[in-house]
Amino acid sequence: MAKPLSHGFVREIRVEKPSLANNTSDAGRLEQSLKKQLETDYVRMPLHLLKNLPTRLRQSDFRAKVVLFKDPYQWVLLDIINPEDGITPLGIAIDIGTTRIVLNLVNLETGDILGEKGFDNPQAQIGPDVLARIHHSNQPEGLDSLHKLVIDSVNSHIGDLCRDQGFKRQDVFLITGAGNTAMTHLFLGIESYEIIKEPYIPCVNVPNSVEARELGLDINSRGYAFLFPNIGSYFGGDLISGILFARLHEKENPCIMVDVGTNAEIVVGSREWLIACAGAAGPALEGGVSKIGMTAKPGVIERVQIDPEAGSLEIKTIEDQPAIGICGSGMIDLAACLFLTGMIDIRGKFSKPRCKDRLFEKDGIDYFILVDEKNSGTDGPICLNQVDLNSLTSSKAAMYTILEVIVNNTAGLAFEDLAKFYVAGTFGSFIDPRSAISIGMLPEMGLERFEVLGNSSLGGATMLLTDASAFEQILEIRKSITYIELNVNQEFMNMFSGAKFYPHTDRSRFPSVKIMV
Amino acid sequence: MAKPLSHGFVREIRVEKPSLANNTSDAGRLEQSLKKQLETDYVRMPLHLLKNLPTRLRQSDFRAKVVLFKDPYQWVLLDIINPEDGITPLGIAIDIGTTRIVLNLVNLETGDILGEKGFDNPQAQIGPDVLARIHHSNQPEGLDSLHKLVIDSVNSHIGDLCRDQGFKRQDVFLITGAGNTAMTHLFLGIESYEIIKEPYIPCVNVPNSVEARELGLDINSRGYAFLFPNIGSYFGGDLISGILFARLHEKENPCIMVDVGTNAEIVVGSREWLIACAGAAGPALEGGVSKIGMTAKPGVIERVQIDPEAGSLEIKTIEDQPAIGICGSGMIDLAACLFLTGMIDIRGKFSKPRCKDRLFEKDGIDYFILVDEKNSGTDGPICLNQVDLNSLTSSKAAMYTILEVIVNNTAGLAFEDLAKFYVAGTFGSFIDPRSAISIGMLPEMGLERFEVLGNSSLGGATMLLTDASAFEQILEIRKSITYIELNVNQEFMNMFSGAKFYPHTDRSRFPSVKIMV
Repeated sequence: MAKPLSHGFVREIRVEKPSLANNTSDAGRLEQSLKKQLETDYVRMPLHLLKNLPTRLRQSDFRAKVVLFKDPYQWVLLDIINPEDGITPLGIAIDIGTTRIVLNLVNLETGDILGEKGFDNPQAQIGPDVLARIHHSNQPEGLDSLHKLVIDSVNSHIGDLCRDQGFKRQDVFLITGAGNTAMTHLFLGIESYEIIKEPYIPCVNVPNSVEARELGLDINSRGYAFLFPNIGSYFGGDLISGILFARLHEKENPCIMVDVGTNAEIVVGSREWLIACAGAAGPALEGGVSKIGMTAKPGVIERVQIDPEAGSLEIKTIEDQPAIGICGSGMIDLAACLFLTGMIDIRGKFSKPRCKDRLFEKDGIDYFILVDEKNSGTDGPICLNQVDLNSLTSSKAAMYTILEVIVNNTAGLAFEDLAKFYVAGTFGSFIDPRSAISIGMLPEMGLERFEVLGNSSLGGATMLLTDASAFEQILEIRKSITYIELNVNQEFMNMFSGAKFYPHTDRSRFPSVKIMV
Repeated sequence: MAKPLSHGFVREIRVEKPSLANNTSDAGRLEQSLKKQLETDYVRMPLHLLKNLPTRLRQSDFRAKVVLFKDPYQWVLLDIINPEDGITPLGIAIDIGTTRIVLNLVNLETGDILGEKGFDNPQAQIGPDVLARIHHSNQPEGLDSLHKLVIDSVNSHIGDLCRDQGFKRQDVFLITGAGNTAMTHLFLGIESYEIIKEPYIPCVNVPNSVEARELGLDINSRGYAFLFPNIGSYFGGDLISGILFARLHEKENPCIMVDVGTNAEIVVGSREWLIACAGAAGPALEGGVSKIGMTAKPGVIERVQIDPEAGSLEIKTIEDQPAIGICGSGMIDLAACLFLTGMIDIRGKFSKPRCKDRLFEKDGIDYFILVDEKNSGTDGPICLNQVDLNSLTSSKAAMYTILEVIVNNTAGLAFEDLAKFYVAGTFGSFIDPRSAISIGMLPEMGLERFEVLGNSSLGGATMLLTDASAFEQILEIRKSITYIELNVNQEFMNMFSGAKFYPHTDRSRFPSVKIMV
């Protein structure tokens, strides 16, 4: 057996042997050992565990590998394993995304991640977004069918993940999940309709841990599941999980975390305070920046650079296949290149003199040829039109404005006061901060301050599987967050107007951005 | 709706309505109301209750009748009822006796006892006593079959009891049960074999509350069950329940409670301390005093008195039927009458000169004719022989000696220091204290100090259904009890020898006992 984690949920313990001098119950002596190890007053022991406890303790000569869990309120003993049985207790962390679900398989004793698996959220067949699904959940059987869709798919992929790694699903004892408030409700199978109706009330913000089988999760019959708590309808457990993962709540100096997904979700703060803002910024961010481009697949343009010699554009596709389209991060790169080479102006419009014959007009809309027909992986050339570009311009302006509102106006900080800029979320992982600064989407900051977190929601859920102290931290994070509604008022619209320029009407904010022509 | 009990498990609450100003979750606002009412930090809400909480709260305009439960560790919310649905939440208290099981049906809102039902413990078909059943529980399927026998019979009688009172079993939300340690284990379906093997270790002493369905109990699917904790293998939850019922733990001056069942179980103490002693006092009490006579049924002699005019014996049978035998309490009366009239001497032997022709000898054993053949309800006369009388003599001596050991030797009190002498248990209910003093079974005390409690185990379990504060009291009782093993050593045997005389070798201990001849 590997050395157990000091704060982990799997421990090796010795139970004092009974004697006439110490004739307290088996459960009592087991509890004494656990309380001492866990430094707690109380450990809940489910009845099924007591049923054959005397035999099991005696078979292993009063030594045991125990599998525990802790939710915000109490320790629960899940199982007692004979150390000689060679069982490795496992956990599954889940990022319950609206679009995509990702699982981590974790060795609970060592904390090692043994495998990862992502798949599309099957609820998409009911509706692509939260709104459509919640409306469906209000139909007869709607909630049950949405709940069953997600649980069945998770069960199936847990089975695959375990089998691939040479384990059985019965070895999985713990499941932690993080998702937005709606996804959390649907995963738990609880009514979610009030989330989208004024005054926007979740059924629950801090769900208890539950027996996994009560949710229909097919793991060890004694297993437990815990979903991250929400702050409210628009601030979900995925964000709390992300804060935990980034350790934002432990920072000495203020840092910022930005999760760019369907919505932009932002948290700024330190160990002293946390301010959060989430949700779409009105029509400007409708659909979100991630919706501009294609999702990643072979042939999708993911990087665009300027060839420093020729001053021409160099494109890089996924798996170097002929280009079939462009993804969000590629779009940001492209816009930066076009702006720096003068092919788009500070208003974000194509410049005919600069674009020359790469520009053509159709139905009154300008099209920029990015890849010509003969090099394209499709029937025609790969183009960017002014409508898509305008959409990107609005999105980048909205992102910058939101950052300005929360950092400058709300927290009263300058961007340079931020020690770190954490970029979370799958989409965020691919953004080149240099390009994002060039178009004025992210503020001018030393590139060394940017740090890509990847899937922070999954990361936090994974942490929770191996660190019992994380539960208190989650509650602390919840308590210290001030959630602000983004107020799209006249002041916001004024700031937004300035940010729609490339990189901004106030050029002094972006001293490093130098147009090459 | 009747006025709810102030410490009861059914409350009417109002939940604050949601608004943009108070947009915390439905569960959160419900919890706020409950916490305020219950003066607690935490109320556990099971997942199934959250599933349709938003709809339910809105249907009843945010008013609700809540059904709660509290075990030693936490409050649990069991159900939310629309006050207009007219449902009366019920509870069942169970005395889980080795021989007999008794149920009380209780209105959880008012505390009223709506009905009572007793029946033989069906585990008797496996074995009459604890030992035989525990041995059987160690056979393949033995534990399951014993568990199923008791649960099935309880389910069936709960159904009858509810139907008789015009309720449904789904209206039952809470079950509390008190039994000895072995019966508690078998009711919970947990291994009990170590209880009877040195060093006599129960599997559990303080079981958590459990979902009733987990035990197979067929009541409301959200119902909970709680069994009284044990002190150890020989001191069960029935005694704790009895102490709670007698309020021994609240007395200013020391009192004593004696439960005379299969074993003699004794607790002496006050709000400051409790000393307990249980179990058979070696061979002397083997079978217990209750085994001497028949169990109660029509024709059984339950009272024997001396006709003050004629100086003759007057007998009273159950339902005034022709006599068919004598029960334990009748035996004590009879022995007292025989002793006071000189028909038995101070050694407990029949006196031929006094008994005259009521005495005959058969196979070298003296028989005393209590009811002659022509007045008997059987084929022959009803007799008491010297062997049975010796057995009663040993039992009464053992009882007195145990009382002496625990009150005088252990607690360091004189009998006259005891403010109250509580007699618990079915058998105890029928003992005439005057008779018991006359034969030296109970110590000489003013008769006004004796108080019959009846089924104190059932009484305590019933209290627990209607008083949430009882849980803390139970844990307090457990903590304050010093349990002493009865040490049958030379000193005990010396005391026992003295107590085998009628009423005692030391006549000064029983000044009120005056022989009539």
